[in-house]
Amino acid sequence: MKKKLHAVLFDLDETLFSTSDFTRLARFNAVQAMVDLGLDIPVQTLFDELQEVVSEFSSNYNYHYNKLLLRFPEKYFTSLNKTALITTAIIAYHDTKYKYLTPFPDAVNFIEKMHKKNAYLGVVTAGLTIKQFEKLLRLDLYKYFDPHIYVSEEIGVSKPNVKLFEMSCMGMNIDPKFTMYVGDNPTMDIDPCNKLGMTTVLIKKGGKYLKVKGETKADYECEDFSELYKIVDQEFDLVVKS
Amino acid sequence: MKKKLHAVLFDLDETLFSTSDFTRLARFNAVQAMVDLGLDIPVQTLFDELQEVVSEFSSNYNYHYNKLLLRFPEKYFTSLNKTALITTAIIAYHDTKYKYLTPFPDAVNFIEKMHKKNAYLGVVTAGLTIKQFEKLLRLDLYKYFDPHIYVSEEIGVSKPNVKLFEMSCMGMNIDPKFTMYVGDNPTMDIDPCNKLGMTTVLIKKGGKYLKVKGETKADYECEDFSELYKIVDQEFDLVVKS
Repeated sequence: MKKKLHAVLFDLDETLFSTSDFTRLARFNAVQAMVDLGLDIPVQTLFDELQEVVSEFSSNYNYHYNKLLLRFPEKYFTSLNKTALITTAIIAYHDTKYKYLTPFPDAVNFIEKMHKKNAYLGVVTAGLTIKQFEKLLRLDLYKYFDPHIYVSEEIGVSKPNVKLFEMSCMGMNIDPKFTMYVGDNPTMDIDPCNKLGMTTVLIKKGGKYLKVKGETKADYECEDFSELYKIVDQEFDLVVKS
Repeated sequence: MKKKLHAVLFDLDETLFSTSDFTRLARFNAVQAMVDLGLDIPVQTLFDELQEVVSEFSSNYNYHYNKLLLRFPEKYFTSLNKTALITTAIIAYHDTKYKYLTPFPDAVNFIEKMHKKNAYLGVVTAGLTIKQFEKLLRLDLYKYFDPHIYVSEEIGVSKPNVKLFEMSCMGMNIDPKFTMYVGDNPTMDIDPCNKLGMTTVLIKKGGKYLKVKGETKADYECEDFSELYKIVDQEFDLVVKS
């Protein structure tokens, strides 16, 4: 007998688009802009140092470039305006969002197919509310998930706390048992959803957490979303919007 | 005998580019994006209300769109996500900066000519440091003024306090008497600079403060920068960079 599936919920970062590819490009453009403004340090050196700053101060910290400049001797700045260097980096980072923020094509394909079937779709993501909504809107995926978008900052609970997923299911008025969660992180996505009895899918597209071992195994492991589509099609009985 | 001119300092907003034209377009795009996302209020109504919000809470306030939505009855939002509305407005505003931020052509022409003459050029502006530097960088004018950019937030003194202009002259190591300040606001730009004995130029391009009466008159009133160039050329003895 096919399993009943009332909704498919998705993780956002690294699952629907490559956050790491995007941030790598945006940060590279940011440090390149600093060099273009006259900073005499190799781009790669700046980039590597910036990646260290982000890993030490978190990606949602507001002063990455200020910290970056602190980490080089004053001799590099004798004829340079630090405020201008920081501002040009911020501009270049933001302009990259305008130009290059794109979703995984197979994820879009899957979502569109599920949307055409009138499936209930949602997003459960950890991060800052405005930043996560900005990604969904710029990726042009917002329309498929509205109003079922659950962001940890807004909810007051973050991954891997099971309550984040529990409250998201309550928000959609469904039993977690009839819900599928698709994510890329074994400890942040799969373990908590397994605890709630959700159907879990580890999507290995991004590959960022391939070496991370969770406490539990995902119900399904997929290389991409076309594989997942076959699984949903063959093994699940989809409850659709009336 | 020609007057000695050691440096020309400029106001930024409404003097080097039309801040009002730009913000009008960016805010229009922001409310249009809200309507595109489903907000069933006429764009012009939203725009007028947004202009009121900005005038009440200042242009550097961070929550214009949150305040805007508070001013309409809840019935408009029953099926809409307020966070998404606010985020789409922010995105549209920022994308307008990427696409449409341009300086007055006659200002660029004047600055380029003065730059070729090796004149000392600078900017003295009231505002937030990063925002003002972003404008100068996006307008591609930064290169002409670096390192002589004085922003009230960074200096701790704002217009119309004479100290802002005094400290800027000190930063350039020149006597205010041999300095020209070009601005569009009689009370914020002309009055304080007159007090310091600077040569003052009221530029009437933007036209935003045409009805504002200052306590004192500017030494020169110009319709545009080509008129100012003639004045500088004929009446001043320019001290140039060695």
